[in-house]
Amino acid sequence: MTGLSNSAAVIREYDNKHYMHPWESMEDGRADRTISARAEGIYIYDQDGKKLIDGPGGMWCTQIGYGRQEIADAISEQVMQLSYHSPWNTASEPSALLARKLAELAPGDLNTVFFTTGGSTAVDTAMRFVHFYNNRLGRPDKKIVISRQKAYHGSTYLAASVTGKERSKSWFDIDTDQAHLLPDVNPNLRPEGMDLEAWCDLKVADLENAIIELGPDKVGAFIAEPILASGGVIIPPPGYHKKCLEVCHAHDVLYISDEVVTGFGRLGHWFASEDVFDIVPDMITCAKGLTSGYLPLGACLISDRILAPITGEGQEGVMFSNGYTYSGHPVSCAAALKNIEIMERENILQHVRDISPYFLERLNALGASPIIADTRGVGLVGCVEGRLTAGDESRLALDQKFGSRIDEKCEELGLIVRPLLNMCVFSPPLIITRQQIDDMFDILGRAIETLARETGES
Amino acid sequence: MTGLSNSAAVIREYDNKHYMHPWESMEDGRADRTISARAEGIYIYDQDGKKLIDGPGGMWCTQIGYGRQEIADAISEQVMQLSYHSPWNTASEPSALLARKLAELAPGDLNTVFFTTGGSTAVDTAMRFVHFYNNRLGRPDKKIVISRQKAYHGSTYLAASVTGKERSKSWFDIDTDQAHLLPDVNPNLRPEGMDLEAWCDLKVADLENAIIELGPDKVGAFIAEPILASGGVIIPPPGYHKKCLEVCHAHDVLYISDEVVTGFGRLGHWFASEDVFDIVPDMITCAKGLTSGYLPLGACLISDRILAPITGEGQEGVMFSNGYTYSGHPVSCAAALKNIEIMERENILQHVRDISPYFLERLNALGASPIIADTRGVGLVGCVEGRLTAGDESRLALDQKFGSRIDEKCEELGLIVRPLLNMCVFSPPLIITRQQIDDMFDILGRAIETLARETGES
Repeated sequence: MTGLSNSAAVIREYDNKHYMHPWESMEDGRADRTISARAEGIYIYDQDGKKLIDGPGGMWCTQIGYGRQEIADAISEQVMQLSYHSPWNTASEPSALLARKLAELAPGDLNTVFFTTGGSTAVDTAMRFVHFYNNRLGRPDKKIVISRQKAYHGSTYLAASVTGKERSKSWFDIDTDQAHLLPDVNPNLRPEGMDLEAWCDLKVADLENAIIELGPDKVGAFIAEPILASGGVIIPPPGYHKKCLEVCHAHDVLYISDEVVTGFGRLGHWFASEDVFDIVPDMITCAKGLTSGYLPLGACLISDRILAPITGEGQEGVMFSNGYTYSGHPVSCAAALKNIEIMERENILQHVRDISPYFLERLNALGASPIIADTRGVGLVGCVEGRLTAGDESRLALDQKFGSRIDEKCEELGLIVRPLLNMCVFSPPLIITRQQIDDMFDILGRAIETLARETGES
Repeated sequence: MTGLSNSAAVIREYDNKHYMHPWESMEDGRADRTISARAEGIYIYDQDGKKLIDGPGGMWCTQIGYGRQEIADAISEQVMQLSYHSPWNTASEPSALLARKLAELAPGDLNTVFFTTGGSTAVDTAMRFVHFYNNRLGRPDKKIVISRQKAYHGSTYLAASVTGKERSKSWFDIDTDQAHLLPDVNPNLRPEGMDLEAWCDLKVADLENAIIELGPDKVGAFIAEPILASGGVIIPPPGYHKKCLEVCHAHDVLYISDEVVTGFGRLGHWFASEDVFDIVPDMITCAKGLTSGYLPLGACLISDRILAPITGEGQEGVMFSNGYTYSGHPVSCAAALKNIEIMERENILQHVRDISPYFLERLNALGASPIIADTRGVGLVGCVEGRLTAGDESRLALDQKFGSRIDEKCEELGLIVRPLLNMCVFSPPLIITRQQIDDMFDILGRAIETLARETGES
């Protein structure tokens, strides 16, 4: 019983013919994707009724798990109460309450919320805020946004411009004038014998040098994920963010903390910026976990400090002319409020903090396999990286398929992971139990073992 | 009985303090907006339980009206069935069915759907498609997108760059290298004695001249709303779109028809491009009416013709690396499918075609007032324009407040209109009855009469 009304064949035919998916291959076309038929808790059921653990948590987003009747009820009630209102000229209860709640949960003086429809539009808005801010302050040239290799910030044109992931493979344009990428911060790349502290200083110096070389009067902002998520779960060295923030503020550069992945409990806190990395940024972008993926919603949180000089007296006739028909959609906001309420009531942040050491223990144990080069994680985010065999071209090509080969084996065994070239990343629903963590890593371990055997490395 | 759980004072306090709305005034801050408390049919109820006709249809979007139990049920069922799936690697029934349905409803060979989260991201995607397309075809310089003064295409950076509305008042940056604006097409601006056909030729020549001057090897696309909606309901002269399409195709320039407002019945058809304006564009962007505003969703429809040379053989390893976590969200797609089903079952397109002549008759009758300079409309979109009194500065300033003054009076009398400087525009839910059209224009007429009396023009 999959609960589908149409046959899998019909759904696939329509999907193949008419739906161009994100990151669609232009070669194969839309080829016979697995159908997600229904989902409950941490499990997804495919077109054959096969039960799969949702390793990636949808797309880093299904914090409280699937199929929550309470969320369905909150959504349905809001639909009947007020399914839409124009955010231009009217207010509504769910959006006002959610704005208040986010201001409460956010660190420091980030008390103002601009709602968007997802992470990309939250980043687009944050970057347009940088334009607006510096135009209003009479610094029209202070617009470059510094980002980092391996960063992922979304896929509007502006968000893609500060994305440092696999850019060379992209056939899209980006705005090179307004974006500048720093080298990879991955501590694994540090020269032999260099300690983490020295690596940290080097990476912070990359930022400061870039600001100085580009010119502090030209650099508007620095944007950074607390951990580089889809770039391969790269965790910067300790103290990195704090020192970067100091550098930014010394040069009057805004710090945008992109918490689209790390927000809403992924690292055991509402936001990771302050609670994990000890910084109060100038802006925070968020989405995904905000509604546990139940409905589209994003937000850009802005600090009082940076709003102060551009609001109130002296701003006659000035409007922040940015926003969307679906900014602060009342139904999406109602889903977010209920999602946060459930996370609070069920103590999900504490659960993540309690269970993540075990998650990381099981993750790191996978490193014993000869085909695993690295395991790394934090909170409920993990990554296993296949071993690169330098100097042997055919082995190198194989390594690039490590992710998809592991993924294939895991799916057979009942687990979805997210393949990324020579890596697999996972970020399961936050409600995952110890037993389910065991199930997940048991399958992953078996998949790795099988691949090791097949490649003669066991 | 407003149905609010918190007092209006509390909601307002939170809204004022924490929610930065689209187009927020930076001078007044977030000042005491009317609260939309609940809504049903074509009516919105404010914090005092006051009943208001929803003149603007939310934000051009509430086609089937508010409070439909069927939609709430479809949404709630989908939430319990499958609240999310990653569109990267999996398919789902609602998104596949909706893609198929849109391909059926769309004109000509527009058979491929790329889902987004709203109109702005649909336009951003269409423009990024232009980049991708010409990069793949080895024409990296063919990227300029031509648009028009008064056009509105959204508010990501890229969408804002082709928006021709009140740009001079904006404190945001736009990409001037990639966008080119043609002069206003408003037929009211034609020189005395010039007929519509000559005006049309002039406006089409504007496009062709721009392509030639910029260079056909530099111009990637032309983007146009069938009618310029929030730019003031500007209806181009007959034959304009068809001739523009011919010019585009003569120069290998893609034609993007932005149907975010005109799609889904606003002009009495699923899409206006072919059924009203006799064109099959290369891309259509849509949103708003697609879900009747019940949930965030947008789409970019692409023709087989332009996909053919960039798909299949010869495209090894090429990915369309654009998209969003919430692309094709299954719950939003389920809402859209139910919305379309309701529109079909209730014959809403036919209703719009039947009722709009009466709507336009009542609209045009308002032109008898001495303070009304123009009335114009098509389908269920209308605009009244206050009379500009040239040469008298104080009168001119007054005219700029015509919209807000009419809006204020209408709200007192139970009608929301959308004020736009010297205009009011309206686009009520498509289910509006003849009696409700009477109610609407009776109020509008009284508001105009009162203003005329106040300004000594009655």
